[in-house]
Amino acid sequence: MDLSKELAKYSQALTYEELPPEVVEFTKLCILDYFGSAIAGSNKVPIKMISELVEEMGGLEQASLFTGGKSSAVNAALLNGAASHIVELDDIHKGSIIHAATVVIPAALAVAQWKKLSGKDLITAVVIGYEVCFRIGEAVSPSHYYYWHNTATCGTFGAAIAAAKLLNLTEEEMVFALGNAGTQAAGLWEFIVDGAMTKQLHSGKAAMNGLLAALLAQKGFTGPTKILEGDRGFFKAMSEQYDVSKITEGLGKEFKILENSFKIHASCRHTHHAIDLLIEVFKERKPSLEEIESIIVKSYKAAIDITDNDNPTTEYAAKFSLQFCSALAILKGSAGLFDFNETNLWDDQIRQLLKKVKVSIDPDINANYPEQWGATVEVALANGETIQKQSDFPKGDPENAVTSEELVEKFTTMTNDISATKKEQIIRDILALELIENTETLMTRIS
Amino acid sequence: MDLSKELAKYSQALTYEELPPEVVEFTKLCILDYFGSAIAGSNKVPIKMISELVEEMGGLEQASLFTGGKSSAVNAALLNGAASHIVELDDIHKGSIIHAATVVIPAALAVAQWKKLSGKDLITAVVIGYEVCFRIGEAVSPSHYYYWHNTATCGTFGAAIAAAKLLNLTEEEMVFALGNAGTQAAGLWEFIVDGAMTKQLHSGKAAMNGLLAALLAQKGFTGPTKILEGDRGFFKAMSEQYDVSKITEGLGKEFKILENSFKIHASCRHTHHAIDLLIEVFKERKPSLEEIESIIVKSYKAAIDITDNDNPTTEYAAKFSLQFCSALAILKGSAGLFDFNETNLWDDQIRQLLKKVKVSIDPDINANYPEQWGATVEVALANGETIQKQSDFPKGDPENAVTSEELVEKFTTMTNDISATKKEQIIRDILALELIENTETLMTRIS
Repeated sequence: MDLSKELAKYSQALTYEELPPEVVEFTKLCILDYFGSAIAGSNKVPIKMISELVEEMGGLEQASLFTGGKSSAVNAALLNGAASHIVELDDIHKGSIIHAATVVIPAALAVAQWKKLSGKDLITAVVIGYEVCFRIGEAVSPSHYYYWHNTATCGTFGAAIAAAKLLNLTEEEMVFALGNAGTQAAGLWEFIVDGAMTKQLHSGKAAMNGLLAALLAQKGFTGPTKILEGDRGFFKAMSEQYDVSKITEGLGKEFKILENSFKIHASCRHTHHAIDLLIEVFKERKPSLEEIESIIVKSYKAAIDITDNDNPTTEYAAKFSLQFCSALAILKGSAGLFDFNETNLWDDQIRQLLKKVKVSIDPDINANYPEQWGATVEVALANGETIQKQSDFPKGDPENAVTSEELVEKFTTMTNDISATKKEQIIRDILALELIENTETLMTRIS
Repeated sequence: MDLSKELAKYSQALTYEELPPEVVEFTKLCILDYFGSAIAGSNKVPIKMISELVEEMGGLEQASLFTGGKSSAVNAALLNGAASHIVELDDIHKGSIIHAATVVIPAALAVAQWKKLSGKDLITAVVIGYEVCFRIGEAVSPSHYYYWHNTATCGTFGAAIAAAKLLNLTEEEMVFALGNAGTQAAGLWEFIVDGAMTKQLHSGKAAMNGLLAALLAQKGFTGPTKILEGDRGFFKAMSEQYDVSKITEGLGKEFKILENSFKIHASCRHTHHAIDLLIEVFKERKPSLEEIESIIVKSYKAAIDITDNDNPTTEYAAKFSLQFCSALAILKGSAGLFDFNETNLWDDQIRQLLKKVKVSIDPDINANYPEQWGATVEVALANGETIQKQSDFPKGDPENAVTSEELVEKFTTMTNDISATKKEQIIRDILALELIENTETLMTRIS
């Protein structure tokens, strides 16, 4: 069994009509959630830099940019893929450790708009893009994730197959697209030490590279046919352990997009368990700085690897500091988009409390990762009391789901920079996306 | 000591005036050799496909394409980086296992032309680009090379630093450029099994990605500052063994570009030792198919890993078949650009002889790799005689050098598709490149 071929066969064959209604509804929420993140991120400094780059290079006006105007489909994938990955509110899939929206959707949108395809086409392509990259991510997780940013590496395959579907590629061309997506897969975690802007480059480039692979395949450009399982392929080169069965087990019988999680807090997903639990403590007790002796957060290894930082010095680094997020949650009672700001970053109380937060790995919690992204917290109070709480599934996981109303509310809160009319148009368009004949209609809303 | 910082400090400081005359002369030959490969490759099918893609996406007319016309600097790096890596005659550095020209030079040319920089600027940037990627390649070779195509992965750093030099970036910006080059580094050998077109995508994307990293750094886009040695950086993620000392040992005291090898045969460098030796046998004896009982080729592991193929079915695959190249060399006495064609691919005598070629790893030869790319051949004849030959350095290595006249001759032979006048102009321009005030002058020769 050739894995790329199996994925291509599935992707080539799937039609909109075969999607169960709940998959269609859920996918529209993923797309709405993507728009929220992309709009909220579009005025951030790193995104403006990428926008300057796109303008500097030029390109035919094929697809809309969330920063305004149009450029080539490839440039749009780059820019829109970067824009949606900066406010740290984009969706996440536990099992594969992938933020799929920020890679799959910009690539799909660029092609759908350029080729004047319908909302149904877009929905189908997004479902397939999620399916393929989630499966690849699950196959290599968690070992791959130590060095590699799954969203970037595995995401490239998702962008490629979504674009390939919209370009109506044959099964063979899809195999080549996957092959040349995988050989471009890149994105190292090293940037996290510096809190560098690289994370947005990763998602933007993954969207762009996947699209490039699909566009080349359309022209007959060949690629490796066993990029996943081959002796010098993605699995062996880039993961210590991998599980081939994840690629095909249940393929076509389930829709993995339904396993997607949405983020409510505007920080790294690996901080959400603790934030959830400490917001509960805030609600129940509102302990003051003086009352708190210490906070112990125990979680899985990847959470500690990525978010153990007791001295974040930028807003962005604060989103990746488990200590900061914990202090913020228990003192302020929230960790939303507007809570990560310079005032809170340098807030005296938060800075003092941050030093009292101890983070460590819990072997039992770690054993359940990545199926469960759990944590325990222990808040020791000055009066000798200890508050203990535990979470297996942070808010927004399918097992601890948000409602569609909450997601619409999240979108509305995140998009302060656009008018109420535009917000309503976007919500209306996306919630009835299957009725849109030409996705250009939707994309004019952001211009 | 931060490695990226050391490389950036060196790159930022080096001036044209500090280059010894032999380095300037040698670098011009590297650039001439690049032009030969890019011109010869520009009409090949995969390059036409990339050219279609570039046209489809559009871009401002900043830099010339070897396929004609102009596009954005980024598109030019992509296309020109692909074009120069297809006829398998581009240069190679033993110690780092990198074809530097095909990645460093297109990125440098695109910026030099776009920014109307001089021949001296171009020469200096190329020297630096080679220096940086050779050092990184040496640090991770040979273990990295099993999965990864060094030209693509390590080459990305070379393209980035060459572009960064021409964009006159500060030391800090150069560190960011290197960081974001390394986090984009990609290119798996898996394609070799299918003989897919991916190899050209690798070199083109490496040139493009390196340039993107430099352009972003110019805008202040930050990147990981320890991309090489960091805990989640390039070395640890992508090589089983690495030697940090290779990055800085002798930096600024030597010019690694002088270690560059030129290719005379139009096939994978890992076949050249055997081709050299079997051409000698051809010259001495011209044995017929019937006279040859068997040919045993022993070489280092990487050569066998990449080129053990006793049934190549495309011209391109033939260039990567040690068995085919050996049969071709002993029966035809050459393995030049025009020897790899459909006639020879399916030539009865070659196909029969191909089955008599046995290839294997020799531990002693392997122990000297990659400092020496050696081989032994044993030709057993029907009369019972055995001819044995050995090579430590294939023709074109610095230890077995070609002359500048031979390289001019090689260029002339490779560029049949352009007029004699154009050939002469290009040769004249490049051999006096330090006198050119604006590299636009040179690039108009290819339009």
